[in-house]
Amino acid sequence: MRLAAVRSESGPRIGVVSDDLERIVVLDPALGTVDDVVRGGRPALEEVRAAAAAAGSSVAIGEVELDAPLRRFNRDVLCTGWNYLDHFYESQGKREGQDPVAMPDHPAFFTKGPDTVVGPMDDIAFDEDLSSKWDYEAELALVIGTEGRSIPEADALDHVFGYFVANDVSQRDLQRAHGGQWLKGKSIDQTMPIGPWITTADEIGDVADLVIECRVNDVLVQHATVGQMAFTIARVIAELSRGMTLRPGDVVLTGTPSGIGNAREPQVFLQDGDRVVTGISTLGTLVNTVRRTALV
Amino acid sequence: MRLAAVRSESGPRIGVVSDDLERIVVLDPALGTVDDVVRGGRPALEEVRAAAAAAGSSVAIGEVELDAPLRRFNRDVLCTGWNYLDHFYESQGKREGQDPVAMPDHPAFFTKGPDTVVGPMDDIAFDEDLSSKWDYEAELALVIGTEGRSIPEADALDHVFGYFVANDVSQRDLQRAHGGQWLKGKSIDQTMPIGPWITTADEIGDVADLVIECRVNDVLVQHATVGQMAFTIARVIAELSRGMTLRPGDVVLTGTPSGIGNAREPQVFLQDGDRVVTGISTLGTLVNTVRRTALV
Repeated sequence: MRLAAVRSESGPRIGVVSDDLERIVVLDPALGTVDDVVRGGRPALEEVRAAAAAAGSSVAIGEVELDAPLRRFNRDVLCTGWNYLDHFYESQGKREGQDPVAMPDHPAFFTKGPDTVVGPMDDIAFDEDLSSKWDYEAELALVIGTEGRSIPEADALDHVFGYFVANDVSQRDLQRAHGGQWLKGKSIDQTMPIGPWITTADEIGDVADLVIECRVNDVLVQHATVGQMAFTIARVIAELSRGMTLRPGDVVLTGTPSGIGNAREPQVFLQDGDRVVTGISTLGTLVNTVRRTALV
Repeated sequence: MRLAAVRSESGPRIGVVSDDLERIVVLDPALGTVDDVVRGGRPALEEVRAAAAAAGSSVAIGEVELDAPLRRFNRDVLCTGWNYLDHFYESQGKREGQDPVAMPDHPAFFTKGPDTVVGPMDDIAFDEDLSSKWDYEAELALVIGTEGRSIPEADALDHVFGYFVANDVSQRDLQRAHGGQWLKGKSIDQTMPIGPWITTADEIGDVADLVIECRVNDVLVQHATVGQMAFTIARVIAELSRGMTLRPGDVVLTGTPSGIGNAREPQVFLQDGDRVVTGISTLGTLVNTVRRTALV
């Protein structure tokens, strides 16, 4: 199933997207939100499936306005850094005045504040008074469906409720300015589009076959398959959960491939009015405009 | 006021601690939890004050069991790194094989997962299968009472609901192993005691005068005044909130002074059975035992 959040006057409603991604069934508000379904386990999922099957009508997907599929967060959004080798090496070239870093034996993990989240077609906030280096990062994201701590790698994918697309928009100067810890350059309000919906894990064959792409103003700037990751999705979940409980609703971003603006020659950063299109095969596409917003 | 969480069979109840820290008034469960009061603003605080004044009886504080004063988190616990110069320099000496780092012009920020939190007298989980370098970090913590983004430094302290003590127990090997990003070495379940209660901001004269201490097995290992911070509390809040909304209930740790075990000659790390006492003048004291717990 593909679970979307449909904006309505009474708040977000669950939408179930058709297999051809053309139509959507909007469910009764009494069924709650996608956040509720993620936390409700199999019974909640089956209730939604039955309600969608029983619904008499669907509408063209272009006729509804989509919100971010998740809006209730247990904690910060968990993120993986340097998880595609090409991106790791391109990043090293830009650490001027610093020693090169060996590819870590374990994934780099950091977080983003929940207020970063915007909907799949919403504007990405931009304020040059805050940073002059706004950069895109197309990423495969997942949401946990089953609680676990120190999850074995072999079981890790069973803990995933579903997958979606995210753009981990970052401020490169802020990433550097705060002692090399990335939180501040990853947590500016209203800068991370997610969605367009959550595709449940059972719909995905081999996650390694997914193709991830980012376009800025129609120019292809990132293109990779998930199979190119240095650490697989299962390894990321296993390492992240070691000694740290993951709970239903926790979101994990799995890293961006090469092609970021900060590593280009010359460097290219996002500007007011830029159109960013972030897509992953079969999971859907985010379409966002970078828009001047007073943040400071 | 000093607001504690008192464990009871029906769940945590609000306790109001007397000025001499000797007695506590345990309030009716209908008044909710300390988390509710933090989010409820001045009306909630006045309701608690009136209920405590009207209560006929108090008990000796040793007769109740205290829980962590906060249990409901909006997001990860926000933390400040390298905020006492002596600690910054002692840390640099231990970055073997790496170039020295200049003291940043801006505070280093990172996060801890909410599942790290334990009560003020609870055990600190310890598992040598996860890490061989468990270390203490006594810190002044605060909880936000008033929402704000890009808060001016001059207004920053007005956004603080209250202050409390925390020990940011860290795994030094895990801090290093994950690409130099600290999240993983700061987020092991059940390792961060907080409390013993929240002292509302109006009870504190000049926060810079507070004295912070940590003892391990009765040996004084950390001692500093908050005034020795490289970045003041107001500056930390101003920088942290730049472009990132802080909300009532958000917790901010403000950094640890020198004396950590990782920087000692020879290095000393926490072991099963160690007794850690973390105190800040007028805010109270945490007393915790490091206890072998299967985390992996």
